Amino acid sequence: MNCSVAQALEVLGDRWTLLILRDAFRGHTRFDQFLETGISRNILTTRLKHLVDEGIFDRDPPTGKFAEYKLTRKGLDVQPILLSFTHWGDEYEPHPKGARLTFVDRWSGKPIQEMSAFSQEGKALKASDISVIVGPAYESE
Amino acid sequence: MNCSVAQALEVLGDRWTLLILRDAFRGHTRFDQFLETGISRNILTTRLKHLVDEGIFDRDPPTGKFAEYKLTRKGLDVQPILLSFTHWGDEYEPHPKGARLTFVDRWSGKPIQEMSAFSQEGKALKASDISVIVGPAYESE
Repeated sequence: MNCSVAQALEVLGDRWTLLILRDAFRGHTRFDQFLETGISRNILTTRLKHLVDEGIFDRDPPTGKFAEYKLTRKGLDVQPILLSFTHWGDEYEPHPKGARLTFVDRWSGKPIQEMSAFSQEGKALKASDISVIVGPAYESE
Repeated sequence: MNCSVAQALEVLGDRWTLLILRDAFRGHTRFDQFLETGISRNILTTRLKHLVDEGIFDRDPPTGKFAEYKLTRKGLDVQPILLSFTHWGDEYEPHPKGARLTFVDRWSGKPIQEMSAFSQEGKALKASDISVIVGPAYESE
């Protein structure tokens, strides 16, 4: 399917894959750490191999035991997707006790802005502020 | 699982669900339009019902034929997730012929900024610029 969303979902469009990546951003690097989320060993093995094959994790060392799985730049660039899920979940599936995790600017300590599209001038844009231009690769093979 | 990402994935964490929402943002509202993406009638029926039950689509009329499915505010707020997937797909799964869809600020015609976390001061933040504060609802029931 020739669409960037569909292409991205081919790689990332799996609940466990996104939860593994969430844990990687929390600092998890080892098989046993990723198991803590409740995933089965079989599924975790398959998903980690997939994420290494797709260049989202570097496996260190490449073969053998005691591997660490480290996010590549391609993996780190998944963060806006996860933060968008987080903010949507905070808004629409909140916890009665309040905040779970708050993501802050490390340098100021202030919460990051709500995930949103922004104009070049830095204005947050709503869905109704956004239109779409069809490019040369749309609808081609 | 007490985590905003996991909670959001409970509702949205399905490839077809996200592709249906993508098409809703392109203006699709009717069953037959959503079929164009290649989804089966059975899966589409299930997913649309799920999205109505979750308050992401309003079904108009609520029962009967010729329904239109319209994004609610909760549905419109999924847009940052889809735009984040789009930009990641544009970057890492590009099409050789160039751009597929370019999202622009309707008022200026200029492309929106790359999806990113932003500081309160409007600075784009990388993963290494972000840290996390654990709130009262984390790790509780």
